[in-house]
Amino acid sequence: MTTAVDISPAARRSSELESEISADPSRFRILTGDRPTGPLHLGHYFGTLHNRVRLQRRGVHLSLVIADYQVLTDRDVAEDLSGHVMGLIADYLAAGIDPDEAMIFPHSQVAALNQLLLPFLSLVTVPELQRNPTVKDEIAHSRQSGVSGLMFTYPAHQAADILFCKANLVPVGSDQLPHLEVTRTIARRFNDRYGPVFPEPEALLSSAPLLLGTDGAKMSKSRGNAIMLGSSAEETARLIRGAKTDAQRHITYEPQARPEVASLVLLGALCSERDPLELAESVGSGGAAALKAVVTEAVNERFAASRARRAELLADPGYLRQVLARGNARANERAEVTLAEVREAMGTVYGESR
Amino acid sequence: MTTAVDISPAARRSSELESEISADPSRFRILTGDRPTGPLHLGHYFGTLHNRVRLQRRGVHLSLVIADYQVLTDRDVAEDLSGHVMGLIADYLAAGIDPDEAMIFPHSQVAALNQLLLPFLSLVTVPELQRNPTVKDEIAHSRQSGVSGLMFTYPAHQAADILFCKANLVPVGSDQLPHLEVTRTIARRFNDRYGPVFPEPEALLSSAPLLLGTDGAKMSKSRGNAIMLGSSAEETARLIRGAKTDAQRHITYEPQARPEVASLVLLGALCSERDPLELAESVGSGGAAALKAVVTEAVNERFAASRARRAELLADPGYLRQVLARGNARANERAEVTLAEVREAMGTVYGESR
Repeated sequence: MTTAVDISPAARRSSELESEISADPSRFRILTGDRPTGPLHLGHYFGTLHNRVRLQRRGVHLSLVIADYQVLTDRDVAEDLSGHVMGLIADYLAAGIDPDEAMIFPHSQVAALNQLLLPFLSLVTVPELQRNPTVKDEIAHSRQSGVSGLMFTYPAHQAADILFCKANLVPVGSDQLPHLEVTRTIARRFNDRYGPVFPEPEALLSSAPLLLGTDGAKMSKSRGNAIMLGSSAEETARLIRGAKTDAQRHITYEPQARPEVASLVLLGALCSERDPLELAESVGSGGAAALKAVVTEAVNERFAASRARRAELLADPGYLRQVLARGNARANERAEVTLAEVREAMGTVYGESR
Repeated sequence: MTTAVDISPAARRSSELESEISADPSRFRILTGDRPTGPLHLGHYFGTLHNRVRLQRRGVHLSLVIADYQVLTDRDVAEDLSGHVMGLIADYLAAGIDPDEAMIFPHSQVAALNQLLLPFLSLVTVPELQRNPTVKDEIAHSRQSGVSGLMFTYPAHQAADILFCKANLVPVGSDQLPHLEVTRTIARRFNDRYGPVFPEPEALLSSAPLLLGTDGAKMSKSRGNAIMLGSSAEETARLIRGAKTDAQRHITYEPQARPEVASLVLLGALCSERDPLELAESVGSGGAAALKAVVTEAVNERFAASRARRAELLADPGYLRQVLARGNARANERAEVTLAEVREAMGTVYGESR
């Protein structure tokens, strides 16, 4: 019980949770999402998106928040927010998210969700907000100008994203556990003070495979080292052809000793649902060129259908807008019900005869 | 230009503003309000409420926010929030506020107003919020537990209260000028960054007469030294009878030298619209007992009608609820229009065909 995974009471063993999910998936409501900073890449796909699709297909209720208020301070992104939002929805649907089941919405469109920030802020102190690692990091890095009030209150706003729809399960990496702790603290304090309204959501710790970018660094759109979900077969081939490997000819799967080669092997294995050790062995003395050919084919095969679907979706903005309008309507309806419960619990219902 | 009044660019000479208001009252939109902590007293009445009624009668548009989210951390108040809100509305109407003209609403009822907190928080930094004197004070006084996130972000929430209805005039005491500066900063930065949406509201500095409590300290409900707007004639007589005076028999009006006597004189003068010097002289050697009799009669005469009206209103909660429901509906309509403009300006409109 001393592994990194257990640093928070929110984090139970994934295996334990997974078997509960299998037993009764409809009992679980997942809230997750993304900041709309641009197209998703294969790191996102194998890191989270694939898992969301898997959970949805098992019958877990899924809500996807597009955290557009959390990119306001990023001028480059803010310039084409609408494009990024639409692109994100296309990525979701192309990856297999079912929009009839999942509730997809940008939080800027849901006033009653955002209102929850106010009572929630009354339940956390400034030192507690400062203690959050992400906020702490931002403060440390922007000594000159000071972090924005929005960044500072981000953990409480995230609590609003999660709790407005009463999500009880939040997929996170272990670095995000402190964030979820703020949400759990807010839920607990609200319930203690005003009566039981919110669940205390649990962390579903991801065992996401670590895919590196083609330069051996962390995969990131801004580094230009990422293969996008929407990259063409040709772009994919070009990117993989240029990928960093190492001086050893014989291909093996040794993530610690040979991270770049191992990441390529892993990508190929994930795409073709093969075991990475077996894939490495099958390439063997074929060397980096043979490995790259295998991986390129695996990626292009795995994503051919979703890429075609993505292109179709982007060519039909009317449909994407319709998906979004439906998600917004559902999220607003949900948020208004929760806000009404919150007002009732807090005794801030006036004006109507009760 | 070195008086306390001029510490902020928001503060113009009151006389200058007053003549602009006289020239074209309908050009001005005032936002003001109260925290619902209990019945209003005569200090509130002569400090602000009377002036609001005066401005409304001159044709200025008036919005009154009941800042119920700002009392959440006060457990005693939070217990009967609904009663306090209804009492406040009764006080407003009894004092002469016209509910057909004024928009009266608790901010907890207006989700689109509260949503504005989020973009506004992105426009101010943590050091800027920390610099606010009220917040600074609260931080200094609660070293142990830490101030709440709600208190910390209070100046930005106040900006939402003021700007959602595009108020361009805010009555303040000079101690509140730094608060209004935050609102003006947010309005300016929003307009610079996203395009012109908000006015930069000006301060209408109050020259409020300082009424002391019957113990010579600041008038305050919690001290039990306050005559309420809704006090009965008997209570008023009792409170004034017990009021602190001084050892000099002859009554004069000398606010510096004889603050307790001067405050009684001033109260009598305000109620009967007499000059305090003249009132003091007319009592003269009659001493404290005679002064108290004059003041008691003046207060009871001045407030007889509004006290009767207040009792009627409280006996008709259905009507108060109706006033509130109408205020809420108007505030929501107004806030949704503004939020739509904000979304348009920020580029966060998606989902609908435009």
